[in-house]
Amino acid sequence: MPSKRKVAILAATGAVGQRFIQLLQGHPWFQIEVLAASEKSAGKNYKAACNWLMESPLPKEIAEMPVVHTDVESVEKAGDVDLVFSALPGDLAGPVEEEFAALYPVFSKASAHRMDKDVPLIIPEVNPEHTALIPIQKKRRGWKGFISTDPNCSTIQLAMTLKPLMQFGLKQVVVSTMQALSGAGYPGVASLDIIDNVIPFISNEEDKMECEPLKILGTFDGEKICPADVVLSASCHRVNVKDGHLEAVFVKLEENPGIEEIEEAFRQFKGEPQKLKLPSAPENPIVVRKEQNRPQPRYDRDEGRGMSVVVGRIRKDPVMSVKYMCLGHNTIRGAAGGGILSAELMVAKGLC
Amino acid sequence: MPSKRKVAILAATGAVGQRFIQLLQGHPWFQIEVLAASEKSAGKNYKAACNWLMESPLPKEIAEMPVVHTDVESVEKAGDVDLVFSALPGDLAGPVEEEFAALYPVFSKASAHRMDKDVPLIIPEVNPEHTALIPIQKKRRGWKGFISTDPNCSTIQLAMTLKPLMQFGLKQVVVSTMQALSGAGYPGVASLDIIDNVIPFISNEEDKMECEPLKILGTFDGEKICPADVVLSASCHRVNVKDGHLEAVFVKLEENPGIEEIEEAFRQFKGEPQKLKLPSAPENPIVVRKEQNRPQPRYDRDEGRGMSVVVGRIRKDPVMSVKYMCLGHNTIRGAAGGGILSAELMVAKGLC
Amino acid sequence: MPSKRKVAILAATGAVGQRFIQLLQGHPWFQIEVLAASEKSAGKNYKAACNWLMESPLPKEIAEMPVVHTDVESVEKAGDVDLVFSALPGDLAGPVEEEFAALYPVFSKASAHRMDKDVPLIIPEVNPEHTALIPIQKKRRGWKGFISTDPNCSTIQLAMTLKPLMQFGLKQVVVSTMQALSGAGYPGVASLDIIDNVIPFISNEEDKMECEPLKILGTFDGEKICPADVVLSASCHRVNVKDGHLEAVFVKLEENPGIEEIEEAFRQFKGEPQKLKLPSAPENPIVVRKEQNRPQPRYDRDEGRGMSVVVGRIRKDPVMSVKYMCLGHNTIRGAAGGGILSAELMVAKGLC
Amino acid sequence: MPSKRKVAILAATGAVGQRFIQLLQGHPWFQIEVLAASEKSAGKNYKAACNWLMESPLPKEIAEMPVVHTDVESVEKAGDVDLVFSALPGDLAGPVEEEFAALYPVFSKASAHRMDKDVPLIIPEVNPEHTALIPIQKKRRGWKGFISTDPNCSTIQLAMTLKPLMQFGLKQVVVSTMQALSGAGYPGVASLDIIDNVIPFISNEEDKMECEPLKILGTFDGEKICPADVVLSASCHRVNVKDGHLEAVFVKLEENPGIEEIEEAFRQFKGEPQKLKLPSAPENPIVVRKEQNRPQPRYDRDEGRGMSVVVGRIRKDPVMSVKYMCLGHNTIRGAAGGGILSAELMVAKGLC
Repeated sequence: MPSKRKVAILAATGAVGQRFIQLLQGHPWFQIEVLAASEKSAGKNYKAACNWLMESPLPKEIAEMPVVHTDVESVEKAGDVDLVFSALPGDLAGPVEEEFAALYPVFSKASAHRMDKDVPLIIPEVNPEHTALIPIQKKRRGWKGFISTDPNCSTIQLAMTLKPLMQFGLKQVVVSTMQALSGAGYPGVASLDIIDNVIPFISNEEDKMECEPLKILGTFDGEKICPADVVLSASCHRVNVKDGHLEAVFVKLEENPGIEEIEEAFRQFKGEPQKLKLPSAPENPIVVRKEQNRPQPRYDRDEGRGMSVVVGRIRKDPVMSVKYMCLGHNTIRGAAGGGILSAELMVAKGLC
Repeated sequence: MPSKRKVAILAATGAVGQRFIQLLQGHPWFQIEVLAASEKSAGKNYKAACNWLMESPLPKEIAEMPVVHTDVESVEKAGDVDLVFSALPGDLAGPVEEEFAALYPVFSKASAHRMDKDVPLIIPEVNPEHTALIPIQKKRRGWKGFISTDPNCSTIQLAMTLKPLMQFGLKQVVVSTMQALSGAGYPGVASLDIIDNVIPFISNEEDKMECEPLKILGTFDGEKICPADVVLSASCHRVNVKDGHLEAVFVKLEENPGIEEIEEAFRQFKGEPQKLKLPSAPENPIVVRKEQNRPQPRYDRDEGRGMSVVVGRIRKDPVMSVKYMCLGHNTIRGAAGGGILSAELMVAKGLC
Repeated sequence: MPSKRKVAILAATGAVGQRFIQLLQGHPWFQIEVLAASEKSAGKNYKAACNWLMESPLPKEIAEMPVVHTDVESVEKAGDVDLVFSALPGDLAGPVEEEFAALYPVFSKASAHRMDKDVPLIIPEVNPEHTALIPIQKKRRGWKGFISTDPNCSTIQLAMTLKPLMQFGLKQVVVSTMQALSGAGYPGVASLDIIDNVIPFISNEEDKMECEPLKILGTFDGEKICPADVVLSASCHRVNVKDGHLEAVFVKLEENPGIEEIEEAFRQFKGEPQKLKLPSAPENPIVVRKEQNRPQPRYDRDEGRGMSVVVGRIRKDPVMSVKYMCLGHNTIRGAAGGGILSAELMVAKGLC
Repeated sequence: MPSKRKVAILAATGAVGQRFIQLLQGHPWFQIEVLAASEKSAGKNYKAACNWLMESPLPKEIAEMPVVHTDVESVEKAGDVDLVFSALPGDLAGPVEEEFAALYPVFSKASAHRMDKDVPLIIPEVNPEHTALIPIQKKRRGWKGFISTDPNCSTIQLAMTLKPLMQFGLKQVVVSTMQALSGAGYPGVASLDIIDNVIPFISNEEDKMECEPLKILGTFDGEKICPADVVLSASCHRVNVKDGHLEAVFVKLEENPGIEEIEEAFRQFKGEPQKLKLPSAPENPIVVRKEQNRPQPRYDRDEGRGMSVVVGRIRKDPVMSVKYMCLGHNTIRGAAGGGILSAELMVAKGLC
C-alpha cells in the first residue's frame, strides 16, 4: 500500500457526508482531497458551508478546506482524485454518479443505482463475490471508473444477520423496525413530530427492505445476480432515538436448528473483510448479547466502532421458526462506514 | 337504573387506580365509595397517600377520602359496596381478589386469574357471550360475587382488531409492539433507561399476547371456552412515549379479501356495548385512518375518549396475507376504561 | 351582542394559525369567515393546504374552506370581514398588517409593530388602558381599522406575574427561561438538535423579554406610553418540552413584603377580562401552586384552558428580593388565546 | 511514582461508583483493589451485584471481582488499600466515612462532611491551598487518614467559572440550572415524570449552590477557611438530558471589565493540576465557545474527556454586570472525575 488514495466526497456537508469525514480521519489508506456540495455551499470553506452535527469536533484542516460544486469538472480542477464517495440524495444521484463513474470508482450510499443489473449492491461480509460485476459494468458502459452501491441502512444490518441463516434454508422474513432519527438526515424529523410519539411510516423504506436483500443474498452466475429465493415483509417505524436502528426479525427456515446452533452461526459469521483485515472491518461482524433486554440502541450502537451488528433475544417462534432482535448503527455501518468498508474491499481486491 | 352502584377501588393510589378514579368522575352508573391500598397508605387521606399523576386535577372530594387497607373487613367497614375494581399488581391479586369475590363482583385488571377456566377474560365488544362463565364460576366456587378479568393492555387492542378478521379465516398473527411508558406503572421505567433508547423486552408480555387472544377469540360451548384455532407470535418493546401502545400486525388469512373489504370490516365492527349504548362505549370501537403515517400515539390515543382502537396502513403482505398498524390507549381502553366497560356490560346484562 | 363578528385569519395554515382555528371553534362572539395564507396554499382547501398539528381533530367545516392569498383584495373578495387575526411571521408582518389595518382592526401576534409608539402592546389583564392608543393611532394614520399587538410568548406570562409586584416597588428582574418546542413553530426545532440536549439560544428572544415589559407595564399619559422604571435581564433556552414555557424569575423590590403577601398579591390579581367576563378570560389569571415541585409544563400548561399563568416556589432571594417559577401555555395564552382575549376586550370596550 | 496506589471504592455498584470504575481503567497511579457496597450486594461478584449503566462495556476483570460489605473490617480483609473513594449517599456517608478516615485517606463525593470546618472542599484548579486543612484535621481528629470532599456537581462547574472572575471584584451571583437526569442517580427520575416536562425542583440543591462556593472561594488563614464575600442565589431545575448540567449565570462585579477581558480570563485560567500535569487534568479547565448557541449538553459535555467546563454566550447584563452559560459533565468533572483529580493532587503534594 505505497501511498494513500485521494478521495472526493460528494454531498460532503450533509449528515452522511460529515460522517464520511469523521470516519476518514487518520484512515490508513484514504485521504480526503476534495469536498463537493451543492451550489449554495460551493466557494465557501467547509466550516462556513456546513452545520457540523458530529459530537467529535470538526477537524481543523477540514474546516478550512474549500467546498467545490458537485460536478466532474469542478472536482477535477480541485484535486487529483482516485476515488469518490457519494452521499448524494437519491433523487439527484442518478445522472451525477454516472458522470463521475465515467472517470472514477464511485462508492454510493444513494438508492439510485442499487437495483441496476450491472451495479453491485455490496455488504463486504455478505456478498464480496458480487464485485465480479465491476469489470462487466465497466466494459458494458465504457467507463474508466464504476459505481458500487451500499444497501439502505435498515437493510444492511438485516441482511448481515440473514446471511448466516441461509445455511438453514431461509424462506421467509417478517421484520418490524424502530429506526433512529439520524436516518432521516438533517434537519429531518421535526421535534414536534416525534416528542412523546412514534411515526409509523418511512417513505419507500419498506419497499427497499423487501427488495434489496434478494439481490444481496443472491448468487452471481458469471454474468448477473440471480435473486435469492426468499420472501420478505417489512413494517418501518421512526422512534425517538438519535442513532441505531433496532429491528424485530421473524424468520421461517426449512430446517429446524436449535437456538444454540443459530446463536453459534451468528457468532461464527466472518467474511472477507475479517480475513483481509480491512482497516474498517470489525473483529466480529455480528455480536450476540445474552441479556434478555439487549440489544438497546444507546448501549449497543457503537459495538465494533459502529461496524458490528448486535443480535439478541434469539428464541423459537410459534408462527415462523425463530425470532430475534438486531441493531446496527445506521450512519456508521448503515451509511458512511459501510461505504468505506466497500472501498477497502475493492482496493484490497485490486479493483481500484 | 334507579340508583348508582357503589364501588371500591383496590390499589387506588397506583397509576391504574388513579385512572379508575379519573374515569369514574361523573359516571352515570357508578360512584366511588371506598378507596383501598397497601398498608403504608391506609389511614391517610387519598391526597396524602397518592402521588397524583393524571394531567387533570385530583377531584376535591376524592382528595379528602380516607384510604383503607386492601382487605375485605376494612372495605366492608368503610362502606356499603356493590362492586369492586381491582388494580392490584399481578403477584398480589391472586388470593386477595378471591376473598373479595366471595362477596362482591370483582373486575380485575390483574393477570392472576385471567387464564382460570371459569373466569371470563372480557373485551365487551369481542366476547360478551363469555360472561356465561359467571354463573358457572359462582356455583362452582360457592361465591356471592365473582371475578371478571380484562386482558393485558397490548392484547386488548390487538384482539379487538383480530375479531373482525375471524370471518376471513384468521390463522396466524405476528405482532411487534412499541409500548408506552405508562404501561410499566409508576415509577416504572427509569428515565436513564429510555432517553435516546428503546428497551426490547417487557417481562411476560409476549407470553400474554400469544396466549390470551386464544381464550378471548374462543367459543363458549355451554360449559367452557374452547380456544380459537389461531397461532400468535409477539415481540414486545418499550419506546419513549407517555401513553398509547402502537403495534405492527401481520396476519395470515385463509381467504383472500381485498384491502377495502378488510377496511370495511374494521369500520363496521360494533358490539354489544354499542348496541346497549353503555356509558363508556365508544361510538366506533375501531377507527380507520387513511393517512399513510397514522395512527400515531400522541395524535390518536385519545380517539373515542381513549376507548377506540385506531387502525391504519392496511396493506397486502408478501409473507403473510395482510399487515396493518393498530394503536390503543393503554391505560384507558387497555386498563381502567376497559374494566369499567366490562362492569357496565355486566350491569346491563343483570349479572351484577 | 346581536350577531357574531366575522374574522379572517392571516397565516392560517401555520402553527399559530391552527391554534386560532382550534380556539375559535364555538366562540360566542367570533366566527371564522376567511382563511388566508401564502401563495403556495392559496387556492387549495384548508385540509389540503395545511399539515394539521393540533391533537384535537381538524373541524370538518374548516377542512373544506378555501384558502385565499394574504392580501387585502383576496380577503375582501372572500368574505365580509369584521376583524383580522394575524399569525404572520415577524419579517412579513410589517407592511401587510398595515394594509389590512387601513380597513380592519388587526390583532397581531407578530413582533413587527409591537414597539411602534401608537400601537398598543396588550395583555388584557395588565394594561387594558393602553387601548387608549387606538383612537390616536387611527387618527394619526388615517385608518378605518387599527393594529393591536400581543407581546412575545415568554414576555406575556412574565409580565402577568410582574404586574401585581409593581405595588411593592419592582425595580429589577432577572429571568431564565426553559421554553417549549412549539414556540419555534413548525417544523421548527430539528429532533436531532434537541434529543438529549438543551439549546441555550433563541434568536431575538432576550431582547424582546428585556424590552417589551417596559412598554406593557408603562403608563399612558394621555398621548403616549411612558415606559416603566424597571430593568430586566433575560437568558433564554429551548428544552425538550412540547408546550409550556417555564421561567425562573428573580425580582428586586423596593419594599420588603413577606412571601404570604406576595402569594396573596398573585392570587388576588384580576383584571378587566375577569370583570367584563370576557369569553376567553380565565377565572384566575394567576394560579399559585404550593407543591415544592410545581409548576411543571406537562401538568400545569392547561390551567384555565391554557389561559392562566401558574406560579410556584415563591421564596426569599439572597441576591435580589424574591424568586419564583412561572409557567404559561405558549401557544394559547402566549399566542392565539392571548390575541383572542385582546379582541374580546376591544369588542367589549366598543373599539371594534 | 514507583508503584500504583491501591484503592477501594465505596458504593461501587451505584451510578457514581460505576463512573469511578470506568475512569480508573488504565489509570497510571491508581488501581482498583476493593469494591464495597451494601449488604444486598456483598458476597456477589461485581457483575451480578451491579446493573452496569455505562455505555462502555464493563471491564472483564472488574466483572469477576468480589463485592464486600462497606465496613472497615471487610475492606481491610479484602485487600491492602492505600486510599478510598466514597460514592456513598449523603445520609449514610457521615459516620462510615469517619470510620474509614481513621485509617485511610478518603475522597468523598458525599455531602455529609463538605461543610465541616477542618475538611477541605476541593476543586483542584480553584482552591488547592485548602489542602492545608488536612494536617490540621488529622491532628485534631487523631486519624491516620483524612476526609477530603468534592463539591456538589452543579457547584463545581459554577465555582470553576467564578474563580477567574474574583479578580474583577465578584460580589453577587444569580444562577439558574438545567440539570441532567444522571445527577439524580439510578433509577432516579421516573421517565413518566420527565417526558415532555421539566421538574423545577431538586432537593437541597439550591442550598448547596448558595453555600458551598463561599467555602471553595474562601481563603485559608493558616487555621481555617474564611468564606468569600460573595452572595449567591440559585434556582435548580431538572431537564430531559442524560448527562451535562447547563447553567445560566448572572454575575455582579465591582469592576467593569470588557467582554473580551472576561473571555480572556476564562481562557487563561489554569491551576495546579495543569502545572503538575496530573493524569486527569484537562489541558484547559475552561473552554470558551464563540458560537451563539453553545455550550450544549450533548455536544460539549465530553470536552476535555468530561473534565473541562465549557463557557459560552458571555454578554453584558443590564441588571447585574455580565451573564454567560456554563456546562460541565456532572458525573465526570462533577463527580467521579473530580474525586480522582483531587486524589491525584494530594498524591502529587505528598499528602497521601
